[in-house]
Amino acid sequence: MNDLEFSKPKKVRELFKKEVITRPTAGLARGYAQANLIILPEDLAFEFMLFAYRNPKPCPLLDVLETGNPEPVMSTPGADIRTDLPQYRIYENGELKEEVANIKDYWRDDLVSFLLGCSFTFEDALLKADIPIRHIEENRNVPMYITNIETEEAGRFSGPLVVSMRPLPSRLISKAVQISGEYEEVHGAPVHIGNPEEIGIDNINNPDFGEAVTVKENEIPVFWACGVTPQAVIMQSKLPFVITHSPGHMFITDIKNENLSSY
Amino acid sequence: MNDLEFSKPKKVRELFKKEVITRPTAGLARGYAQANLIILPEDLAFEFMLFAYRNPKPCPLLDVLETGNPEPVMSTPGADIRTDLPQYRIYENGELKEEVANIKDYWRDDLVSFLLGCSFTFEDALLKADIPIRHIEENRNVPMYITNIETEEAGRFSGPLVVSMRPLPSRLISKAVQISGEYEEVHGAPVHIGNPEEIGIDNINNPDFGEAVTVKENEIPVFWACGVTPQAVIMQSKLPFVITHSPGHMFITDIKNENLSSY
Repeated sequence: MNDLEFSKPKKVRELFKKEVITRPTAGLARGYAQANLIILPEDLAFEFMLFAYRNPKPCPLLDVLETGNPEPVMSTPGADIRTDLPQYRIYENGELKEEVANIKDYWRDDLVSFLLGCSFTFEDALLKADIPIRHIEENRNVPMYITNIETEEAGRFSGPLVVSMRPLPSRLISKAVQISGEYEEVHGAPVHIGNPEEIGIDNINNPDFGEAVTVKENEIPVFWACGVTPQAVIMQSKLPFVITHSPGHMFITDIKNENLSSY
Repeated sequence: MNDLEFSKPKKVRELFKKEVITRPTAGLARGYAQANLIILPEDLAFEFMLFAYRNPKPCPLLDVLETGNPEPVMSTPGADIRTDLPQYRIYENGELKEEVANIKDYWRDDLVSFLLGCSFTFEDALLKADIPIRHIEENRNVPMYITNIETEEAGRFSGPLVVSMRPLPSRLISKAVQISGEYEEVHGAPVHIGNPEEIGIDNINNPDFGEAVTVKENEIPVFWACGVTPQAVIMQSKLPFVITHSPGHMFITDIKNENLSSY
């Protein structure tokens, strides 16, 4: 299984397509951008795209697929969004209905698929710069928190910003801001540094999503806009029908991480 | 009239709203970004936004208004897109039906308004850097050409890229590229420098839109993606109903030009 870490994205996607394996995608096809997937009926597509446009930090668009087309022709030609992820979630009226290995039975000609950037990309760059990432060290899911910062609403989409947190020693924070800031298409620079209570986080050890990680003495919690935001907003809006990837089971694109940096 | 050059955008918009004056907006409310306006029914809004997303150089989005809302709440709160421009064009089935001073009689609850960046912004920056702009020197409209470069199509929107041309002496081209390149939200860096025939321009003295300008000996024609592209594409697509600004009669936003630079 370890060779998947250095496989090309297409090879990994083929294994998901054939349903040979089902597993989270963290660490697979290293060097290539992974994406959050959100699929909506066309009559919501403009409003969601407007929401993403107004909230680029939590909703960085990597690719938007033509109505009814399951192929990401711009970013990952040849792939099929209906089969090439390890696991999907089907939501109806804001409730999780089913978790499935492909969405062939759910596909419709009026569905529009959005691929949003994911923090794996900038974490890769942070690690290369010897900035430690606690949840990776502790082999946990990144801790995520619902904040008191409101997103810019658009049509039927509104709700609070969700952030992810990585604790850092003071001497490394500036470097982490600069490096992640170069990755505007994958959440960019942090939205808040220190003082969690100012953004409505009362207990750093009790995240709303993911798992708590150790914050060592003298470390400052650093908060980035999180790709869970649109999912939380979508769930809250109780839309009749939405498909997403299952948490951690991302779409692996053919986009190289370094192409998402403005370096 | 000359004091309008240094007026605040709101004051100039008020004069258009009251229909006290009707004139092209070049040179008015200096320092503030002017925008192309495109208004479409909601059922085309997603596809047009996708077209803009895929073609950011000719279609840089400055603001997108909520369906049915004539107020640009994000960029220019308080303004009314239906009255605050000097002149509008009404198109039906791809043909110009009427040119009007306001669109109150044409407004509908299903209309979506897009504001796209305009080259006035980077021209202002070029002039400040002592880079001469020929069509301003010669008091003409900028020359524009239909190229053989295809835009990335999206749904019903497809067609060739339209470029504007500014002739420059060789020693200033690099500077002009760097300065305009900082203005990604208003067309950014040139798309082509020299050799017009390579992009399908046979006669530089015969532009498809605007007016020809003098290209002096030893000057190189420099081509930028042009905001006329989406209009040309929309006209070509023979859409049932579209409203735009009249050429040169732009919407003056409250956005300062310098805020569109990544400096």
